[in-house]
Amino acid sequence: MLKYQLIANQIESHIYENNLPKGTKLPTVEQFASDYSVSKSTIVKALESLVLKGIVYQVQGSGIFVRKKNRNGYINFNSPHGFTDNLKDNKITSKVLDLQLIKANDEICDYLECSKEDDVYIVKRVRYIDDKIMCYEESYYKQSIITFLNNQIVEGSIFEYIEKAFNIKTSFQDRYFYVISLDKEISKLLGLNVNDPALVAYNQCYSPSGILFNYSKIIYNYKNTKFYDQSSTIK
Amino acid sequence: MLKYQLIANQIESHIYENNLPKGTKLPTVEQFASDYSVSKSTIVKALESLVLKGIVYQVQGSGIFVRKKNRNGYINFNSPHGFTDNLKDNKITSKVLDLQLIKANDEICDYLECSKEDDVYIVKRVRYIDDKIMCYEESYYKQSIITFLNNQIVEGSIFEYIEKAFNIKTSFQDRYFYVISLDKEISKLLGLNVNDPALVAYNQCYSPSGILFNYSKIIYNYKNTKFYDQSSTIK
Repeated sequence: MLKYQLIANQIESHIYENNLPKGTKLPTVEQFASDYSVSKSTIVKALESLVLKGIVYQVQGSGIFVRKKNRNGYINFNSPHGFTDNLKDNKITSKVLDLQLIKANDEICDYLECSKEDDVYIVKRVRYIDDKIMCYEESYYKQSIITFLNNQIVEGSIFEYIEKAFNIKTSFQDRYFYVISLDKEISKLLGLNVNDPALVAYNQCYSPSGILFNYSKIIYNYKNTKFYDQSSTIK
Repeated sequence: MLKYQLIANQIESHIYENNLPKGTKLPTVEQFASDYSVSKSTIVKALESLVLKGIVYQVQGSGIFVRKKNRNGYINFNSPHGFTDNLKDNKITSKVLDLQLIKANDEICDYLECSKEDDVYIVKRVRYIDDKIMCYEESYYKQSIITFLNNQIVEGSIFEYIEKAFNIKTSFQDRYFYVISLDKEISKLLGLNVNDPALVAYNQCYSPSGILFNYSKIIYNYKNTKFYDQSSTIK
């Protein structure tokens, strides 16, 4: 982890542990730089990353302020590091339905930008949040990049494993989503009824060097999931 | 508009007008600075804003590259400036159902962070994308900040008006969303059937100085809306 990320994490922890209310003014860049014994540019980078994450906001010529905490029970829709990292306060578990190494079909080629010759790991899981069904997930990994997966690995956080084993962290994502009525098969997996509503999301994950190594199709249980998206949208 | 924003817009237009494919390497900061006759720090800010918007990505020590264009027909879920700005290639129209100045109720107090004494404009509209029903929208504005609205204004882009009249641009948003089955009243407004699925989103809009001036509750027509979210998620 880079120095500015370490400091960003410490500032974020400080905000949450002290329960700083929305609108609280943070110390100046100069003050932070002196407190942490680092350069001002490191502090600027740390604060920018917290703006990007929606933790603080910056008022030109006035300072850096704490943003609102999320409403309880809402899932961060924008988390780039998988649920396990995102939902630290919740118990996240998985039931693995299938793990196979297959050749890509048309949909896989489209979303993983690969060819039909390519080997692809497919992982099908039902995921639980605090023992309630959160979603059904089909995840696809290019085997040329994610060279090895097994059942024990995919029972836990695949993203944690990928970071440890291959030193790949998701750097950015493209997400596509829409709403459907559930069919029989998926409604059963989600413990819901046919024609119940559901959010379907396709997430494409890119490495820091811009390589697309994974996409997931996730169908959420509408009774057990609500989402927030608190990222900054400053143009 | 600040100089770096102007340059960011020009670089973005350049990418789209020339249809630069994903992965195209952009000129260096030095080259851009020389081309636009501005300082390197202005170029760095312009490029950072394009990273934030999901237009380009940065590979440490290697350069800036073009990100993928959105799939056709997907709406940018993260646009901070209302649909009219976001969907430039589509025809966006509105049918105003109601415009009133009211006292806040419990839900309004909660989402607008105001008291029951406060006067609030409520605007109810059905919004159309290329003449198809996109969503039903209830929008709430603090009258202490957005001092005046009328029917003619709310038939167009309210955000454009707010920027012109009050010089307030949405700086960041908190969004909360989940999926429901439609009731009779809303399904009728959306031209759908009772129990059809729908995405419901609450957006809270903040000014650059961190003041919450508006929230909207938006219920989307699932047949006519698909969404993407291409913002950067670098921690």
